Amino acid sequence: MAENIGDNKIDIKDKAKKGYKSVGKQSIVFNNPPYIIAEASLVGKKEGEGPLGQLFDQAIEDPMIGKDNWEEAESELMKLAAQRVLMKAGLKNTDIRYLIGGDLLGQLIATSFGIAELQIPIFGVYGACSTMGEAMTIGAILIDGGYADRVLAITSSHFAGSEKQFRFPLDYGNQRPYSASWTVTGSGAVIISDQRAKNKVEEKDIVITGVTSGKIVDYGIKDSMNMGAAMSPAAFETIKQNFEDFNIKPDYYDKIITGDLGYVGKNILLELLKEKDYDITNQCMDCGIEIFDKEAQDTHAGGSGCGCSAVTFAAYIMKQLREGKWKRVLFVPTGALLSQVSFNEGNTIPGIAHAVMVEAF
Amino acid sequence: MAENIGDNKIDIKDKAKKGYKSVGKQSIVFNNPPYIIAEASLVGKKEGEGPLGQLFDQAIEDPMIGKDNWEEAESELMKLAAQRVLMKAGLKNTDIRYLIGGDLLGQLIATSFGIAELQIPIFGVYGACSTMGEAMTIGAILIDGGYADRVLAITSSHFAGSEKQFRFPLDYGNQRPYSASWTVTGSGAVIISDQRAKNKVEEKDIVITGVTSGKIVDYGIKDSMNMGAAMSPAAFETIKQNFEDFNIKPDYYDKIITGDLGYVGKNILLELLKEKDYDITNQCMDCGIEIFDKEAQDTHAGGSGCGCSAVTFAAYIMKQLREGKWKRVLFVPTGALLSQVSFNEGNTIPGIAHAVMVEAF
Repeated sequence: MAENIGDNKIDIKDKAKKGYKSVGKQSIVFNNPPYIIAEASLVGKKEGEGPLGQLFDQAIEDPMIGKDNWEEAESELMKLAAQRVLMKAGLKNTDIRYLIGGDLLGQLIATSFGIAELQIPIFGVYGACSTMGEAMTIGAILIDGGYADRVLAITSSHFAGSEKQFRFPLDYGNQRPYSASWTVTGSGAVIISDQRAKNKVEEKDIVITGVTSGKIVDYGIKDSMNMGAAMSPAAFETIKQNFEDFNIKPDYYDKIITGDLGYVGKNILLELLKEKDYDITNQCMDCGIEIFDKEAQDTHAGGSGCGCSAVTFAAYIMKQLREGKWKRVLFVPTGALLSQVSFNEGNTIPGIAHAVMVEAF
Repeated sequence: MAENIGDNKIDIKDKAKKGYKSVGKQSIVFNNPPYIIAEASLVGKKEGEGPLGQLFDQAIEDPMIGKDNWEEAESELMKLAAQRVLMKAGLKNTDIRYLIGGDLLGQLIATSFGIAELQIPIFGVYGACSTMGEAMTIGAILIDGGYADRVLAITSSHFAGSEKQFRFPLDYGNQRPYSASWTVTGSGAVIISDQRAKNKVEEKDIVITGVTSGKIVDYGIKDSMNMGAAMSPAAFETIKQNFEDFNIKPDYYDKIITGDLGYVGKNILLELLKEKDYDITNQCMDCGIEIFDKEAQDTHAGGSGCGCSAVTFAAYIMKQLREGKWKRVLFVPTGALLSQVSFNEGNTIPGIAHAVMVEAF
């Protein structure tokens, strides 16, 4: 089916000649599109009170998740999400060949400590808030290529841990400008498989048909309180490249869903694409905008964090696809590649975006 | 040729039945073993004065590499290593389909800022000092599976940046116990390709025949000044699994080369393997031990860091393979998955090790 993506005749000829699965400049088409057979999303109290609140598997009231510090809380959240997705798939940890995961904390400690006891071979990945896109991309490659039968892709973030890591400890009570985003407390996970889900017989099959992997894009933005502006050029480049590589137009998709551009970044993305004659106004959504009620929850520019796109994908996007409300989605988690050190040293905030083409059959 | 690894009849039957490339519990065999067509290694002054000094492409006297701070210095080092490996392969940045890279700094800023201007689609990876093993594994999968024609795998570390990140700023002049390792200032890079090197006609071809990917192993070590002890159980588990998955014995390899266990960790590894009746005394080497002269350079337990295994592989291991002195090497970069935060919060130091099977033909 992947052969029918857009008007990709050049690609097929090219593939036949070279024997590659590469498409255009930055994309891959999967000849054996991997199935997403299960998904899970665990979030914090605030996310549970938001517009998607009823869709998450669980909203945990205690921000410490029963642990002694924010970092261990996030690890616990990731562990619970991993256990939940295994349970929903009817699988054990030994049924998973690889776990691909990441988070925002320095040296990925939420992931290392969160999933250690699962005892699954792991590839740690980092693309800031685009990490779920990177994890799903590598997971789909492992499945499509026959290197694994089942892969677990997972990311997490925690509001308090992120504020401590990137801005100020919460105790300082610092003010947040309206362009600042609110890091989502949550962990989202999917299991990608070479076989369709056995326990979802009445629902659509969900597959990953292709990916467009991002380059680092740096427009010189330096304001860590306006990460939407920093990431939108990366989302623009990746989405434009997806259209070009597959020779498709925005209406090929029912939805084009960015990770956490928020209100500020989404508008910049729409403008940048319009300059290239791509109007995605009808398709465009942003996980960071969907997850919170801007007015009632005082979250300013929207949600962000590795967990934001992951839980929104698992809870909301997958549901729409499974129920047949959407057929084709371009899922584009977006990341701002800063650290507190690079910020303090006056560096710019480069962005990255990894696009995953998800389809319901 | 991969079919002939050890006595892997069970694997081949299993593969034929399932159509997978998986071997045993944690390994992959490559049906189209990817070539390593070029390698580059840039190091600091101290590494240049060590036993491998003459083998590196360049030793840079200035620890700041002409930049204003340690983080930018490491980014510059990585950029120079990427440019060097491209030059040595006779390739341009646009000839590379993916860059897979990582480093030890929080949020991988050495990588993000180092390779941004190369404008290659990037997968950021993190496995502490095992990162080069993870990068080469994913790179080899992308090539073997036909997802890319050329991949650049790269990692870096910087002594001063690492001390600041994980221990104390150098200005504090703190004392180091003899079990502490010395973070290598260096960046190592390889280009992995589906075609043999065109400019190496008189030398052996070097291929990646398989990989064994690590789980997180935590024996409860908490001393960040003794990371060799923390990582050696992970190296043990991965090496043992490699033997079991391929049904081979230590003498299958000419060398089994760990990343940065150092003197303390190497001895623990040998003991752990002996308990399972594997004696690798004749094959065992450690990049951290090879790179410095313990007595003359006062480096205590040995070198460490993402750059340690990467530059030793590029400068020394590849040379021995190309010249036919070794035929088969198991390259096992080892990582200690701590952060300064997890350490300060009293957590253990989990370890991980990713093994890459490299062979000369």
